[in-house]
Amino acid sequence: MTTIDFWYEFGSSYSYPAALRIERQTKSEGVAVRWRPFLLGPIFSSYGWNDSPFNIYPAKGRYMWRDLERICARESLPLKLPPLRFPQNGLKAARIALALDNSGRVGDFTCHVYTANFAEQKDISDDGTLAGILRTLDLDPAAVLAAANTPENKAKLKAQTDEAVARGIFGAPSFTIGDELFWGGDRLGDAIAWAKR
Amino acid sequence: MTTIDFWYEFGSSYSYPAALRIERQTKSEGVAVRWRPFLLGPIFSSYGWNDSPFNIYPAKGRYMWRDLERICARESLPLKLPPLRFPQNGLKAARIALALDNSGRVGDFTCHVYTANFAEQKDISDDGTLAGILRTLDLDPAAVLAAANTPENKAKLKAQTDEAVARGIFGAPSFTIGDELFWGGDRLGDAIAWAKR
Repeated sequence: MTTIDFWYEFGSSYSYPAALRIERQTKSEGVAVRWRPFLLGPIFSSYGWNDSPFNIYPAKGRYMWRDLERICARESLPLKLPPLRFPQNGLKAARIALALDNSGRVGDFTCHVYTANFAEQKDISDDGTLAGILRTLDLDPAAVLAAANTPENKAKLKAQTDEAVARGIFGAPSFTIGDELFWGGDRLGDAIAWAKR
Repeated sequence: MTTIDFWYEFGSSYSYPAALRIERQTKSEGVAVRWRPFLLGPIFSSYGWNDSPFNIYPAKGRYMWRDLERICARESLPLKLPPLRFPQNGLKAARIALALDNSGRVGDFTCHVYTANFAEQKDISDDGTLAGILRTLDLDPAAVLAAANTPENKAKLKAQTDEAVARGIFGAPSFTIGDELFWGGDRLGDAIAWAKR
């Protein structure tokens, strides 16, 4: 089965509807998903940004929130604005998602974290929030958090972010099929069509 | 008939396929188009950018050119890369487009200028290029250029750019229906759907 790599950052607003939609949309097309959390912070820093461009450039930010409202309304996704803060720090969630790799649960975990961030005004950098999500998924919070915090797993997230940069990724969500890159949730259909070529 | 305002900048790469597609795509949906050229330069300057973000941030630029190749291939549009330069100065072309407003020819003129820029490696800030396009359209270059260069017409372009800013526009192409804004050529379908609500 052809696979799409789904590159996402837990603080990214547009990654929320993409994450909630991707399994359904790819499955119906016979395409598999590889969940690839990474960090946008180091990439933005390399551009000289110390914040999300949606905060640095207010017109872009105002547009994004309105656009996200429209997208979530169309896809019947809950959205509670403003979020607790924007962007939230997705470091811990990304480490957990990587630790869950190969468990078959990374997609479920990811969707719960996005819902906590953008529909529930919860702090996704808080251990309590993350442990609650893991419990909801019948996973052992202590064991998963321990695995997330090993030096090997931390290095894995750094390597994954480095790979994102090497692949030319500059924002989230992004999709890759081999060396082909698509940026933006509204390009998932194009990415699927490319994967099926 | 409902109308979509189509906001474009002659230097903008993604505006090229949008311009070449918009009349066909809107007509089949019973929606009218109002062609609204404006300048991105003053908007980018207000962000502290003295160049296109596609030049300032190379990863974004590399992605854009590859993405534009895919879009043009899919839509059977000619594309010749690299363009003569990027971005080209669209000031004169924008003034001409405004002078042609209400003539019913602004769409044709716009599409020819985009083709000159992105498929023919021509200098769209050159009077000869612009006069050649006007002649192709059976328009009188001397008369149109004179109308384009009146103080009233120059002020009209400044007012149009100010209106774009007031509407929250920060990039091109953009589409507005009343106060509703959509950014990006790939959102034209969403804009049409909104116009038909």
